[in-house]
Amino acid sequence: MNPVVCKPAVVFPEFEVSQDETVAFISEAFPTSDILPVALKMVRNTEVITRRLSRPLSEIATRSDFCARNTSYINKARALAVLAARQAMDNAGIKPSEVHMVIATSCTGFSMPSLTAMLINDLALSVNTQQLPIAQLGCSAGVAAINIAANHCRAYKNHNVLVVSAELCSYLYHPDDNLLASMVSASLFGDAVAATVVRGVSGRGFAIKKSHSIFLKDTENYIAYDIRDSGFYFRLDKEVMHSIKKVAPGIERFIHEHDDSFSGNKFYVVHTGGKRILDEVVNSLGLNETDIEHSRTSLALRGNLSSASVMDVLKRTFDGQKISPGQSGVMIAFGPGFTTEMSVGYWV
Amino acid sequence: MNPVVCKPAVVFPEFEVSQDETVAFISEAFPTSDILPVALKMVRNTEVITRRLSRPLSEIATRSDFCARNTSYINKARALAVLAARQAMDNAGIKPSEVHMVIATSCTGFSMPSLTAMLINDLALSVNTQQLPIAQLGCSAGVAAINIAANHCRAYKNHNVLVVSAELCSYLYHPDDNLLASMVSASLFGDAVAATVVRGVSGRGFAIKKSHSIFLKDTENYIAYDIRDSGFYFRLDKEVMHSIKKVAPGIERFIHEHDDSFSGNKFYVVHTGGKRILDEVVNSLGLNETDIEHSRTSLALRGNLSSASVMDVLKRTFDGQKISPGQSGVMIAFGPGFTTEMSVGYWV
Repeated sequence: MNPVVCKPAVVFPEFEVSQDETVAFISEAFPTSDILPVALKMVRNTEVITRRLSRPLSEIATRSDFCARNTSYINKARALAVLAARQAMDNAGIKPSEVHMVIATSCTGFSMPSLTAMLINDLALSVNTQQLPIAQLGCSAGVAAINIAANHCRAYKNHNVLVVSAELCSYLYHPDDNLLASMVSASLFGDAVAATVVRGVSGRGFAIKKSHSIFLKDTENYIAYDIRDSGFYFRLDKEVMHSIKKVAPGIERFIHEHDDSFSGNKFYVVHTGGKRILDEVVNSLGLNETDIEHSRTSLALRGNLSSASVMDVLKRTFDGQKISPGQSGVMIAFGPGFTTEMSVGYWV
Repeated sequence: MNPVVCKPAVVFPEFEVSQDETVAFISEAFPTSDILPVALKMVRNTEVITRRLSRPLSEIATRSDFCARNTSYINKARALAVLAARQAMDNAGIKPSEVHMVIATSCTGFSMPSLTAMLINDLALSVNTQQLPIAQLGCSAGVAAINIAANHCRAYKNHNVLVVSAELCSYLYHPDDNLLASMVSASLFGDAVAATVVRGVSGRGFAIKKSHSIFLKDTENYIAYDIRDSGFYFRLDKEVMHSIKKVAPGIERFIHEHDDSFSGNKFYVVHTGGKRILDEVVNSLGLNETDIEHSRTSLALRGNLSSASVMDVLKRTFDGQKISPGQSGVMIAFGPGFTTEMSVGYWV
C-alpha cells in the first residue's frame, strides 16, 4: 500500500483581474518606461487570461513597506488556509482530530509562529500534530511537501498529513521595482491557497510509489529572492527557460525506473510555471498537449500560483474524470535551486 | 533497527563576547534608559558567561537595515555551514555522495534558494539530494529536523540525512529596539552552526525510537517575530516561563509509553532555552541537576543557540563519555507555537 494524495481543495481571494486590466495597469504605472512595449507583449504572451488577487490593482500600485504587506499577507493567508484545509479534510473523509502532521508551504510572506501553528489553533487539530512549515522552496514546495508527507506515511502507515500551500503572490509586487522581469512576473502570478490530505491508508486519488529530486548545480541565480530593506524581490533569470531540457533526461530515467507502464497512457500533474516552461516540458519529455491540458487551463485561468499550482492542476485532474484506476501518473514541479521535485505513482 | 543521530559538529564565528562586555555594551547603548538597572540584573541572571558572535559589538550597536544584515548573515551562515557539515559527515563516516536528504534549519535570516541548495553546490552532494529548509520553527527546529530525518530513515532504511542548524542570532539584534526584553534576549543568544547526520543503519549515537510533538493552544504570542520594515524583532512573552509545567505531564506520559526503562538512569539532551527554562525543566520533570549538566554548560559558554543548541548539548553528551550502550535517553526542545518537540531512544 502506497500513500495517497487525496482530492485537493483550492480557494481564491476576492479580486479577479483580467489580462486586459493587467496591461492597462502596467501601462499606467510605468508610462515612460522604454521597455513598456516589450513588457506588454510579454504580458500578452504569458497566456494568463485572468487570475485572482488578494488586493485590488489600485492597492498594489501604491507603495507599501514590508511590515504592512506582510501583516496583510498573514491575515489573508491564515483565513484562506482554514477554508482550504477544511475542504481538503472533507475531501479526504477525515476529521481534524485525525491529522497527525501539518505541512504549510508559503514563500510569499513570513511569520513565526508559522501557518502550521495557526492551523492547529484555528482548526482545533490535535495538540500532538507534528508541524513542518516550508518557506524557501518556492514553486517546487507543493510537490516537495507532498513527497515528505508521503514518506512520513510510509513510516507511519495509519497517519494522515494535511498539506497547505498558501501563496499570495500579489504581496510580492513592488511598485518601485520597474524591472522588465518584475513587471512580467507580476502579470504571471496569481494568489491562491490549496490544501490536500496525504493518507497512509484508505485514500482515493494519486498513490505515490516513489519520489525524486533533481538539482542543477550552480544555478542559484535562476529563481531567487533579492532581499532588500523593503522586502523580497522575485528574480527570474532567463536561463531558467533552458533548464527543463537539462533535467529532462533525469526525469525520463526516473519514470522508466519506477513506472511499470512506461509505454502506456500516463497522466501528468505538472506545475504551471509559465507558457514557455510548459512548452519546454512538452518538447523535452515528448508529451502531447493533451497530457498537460490541466496545467494549461490552470495557467490561463489562475496564473502561476507558486507552490499551490500543482494542487490546482491535481484538482482539475480529479474533476476531469478521465483517469482510470491503476493508470500511471507523474507529478512534477520546478523551483529555486534550480530544483525539480517529482513523484511517480498511479490512480487509486 | 532505529535511525541513529551521529555525533554532531558545532562551529562558531570569530568574536568571543563575555558577559562583562555585554553589560558594558548595554550600559553604553542605553545610558538613559529607566530600566537599565533591571536589564543589567537580568543579563547577569542569564548565566551566559561568554558566547561567540558573528560580528563585534561595535558593529551590532550600529544601525543596519534588513538587506545589509541579511546579506552578511547569508555569507557567514553558508561558510560555517560547509565547515560544520563536513565535520558531521566525517563523524558519521559518510561521504558527501552518501547523503540522500539535506535539512537546514535557520530562523535568524532568510534566503531563497536556501542553505540546502547552497550546501548541495558547496559540498558537491548528489544532485538527487532531497532538500528541506526550515525557517519558522525557531528554537525547536533542531529537534524537529532530527525527528523528520529519523522518520525519513524509517521509510528508507539505507538513507543518510544531513541536518544543519545555522543560527546567527546576533543578526537579529536591532540597536533601535530598546525594549527590556530585547536587551535581555540579545545577551542570552549566541551564534553557531551545528550539523549532524541521521543514519538509517550503521550509525553510532542516539538511536531514536519515537518522536513526539506537544502544542500549547493559543500561545502564538509566547515566542514570535514582530516583523517590521527593518526586519525580524524577536519577542518573548514572560508567560513562556510558565509553559514548561503545562507541557510536563505530556512529556512524562510520552516517556512512560515509549521508554522501557522509565525508572532507570536516563540521559537528557535538552535545548538550553535559558536559566529559568532549565530550572522549570528540572522542577517540572523531577530531574537532578546532573541530568542537564551539558545544557547548563552549553548555556554558560555558548548562550542560547536557537535551533543549534540541542546539537551542542548532544555533542557534549558524546564528549562526556558517561553514557552506556543501551541506556535510554530523551531529547527535548521548545519553540514558537508554543511547541515542544521531543524524541525518546537509546545509546548505540
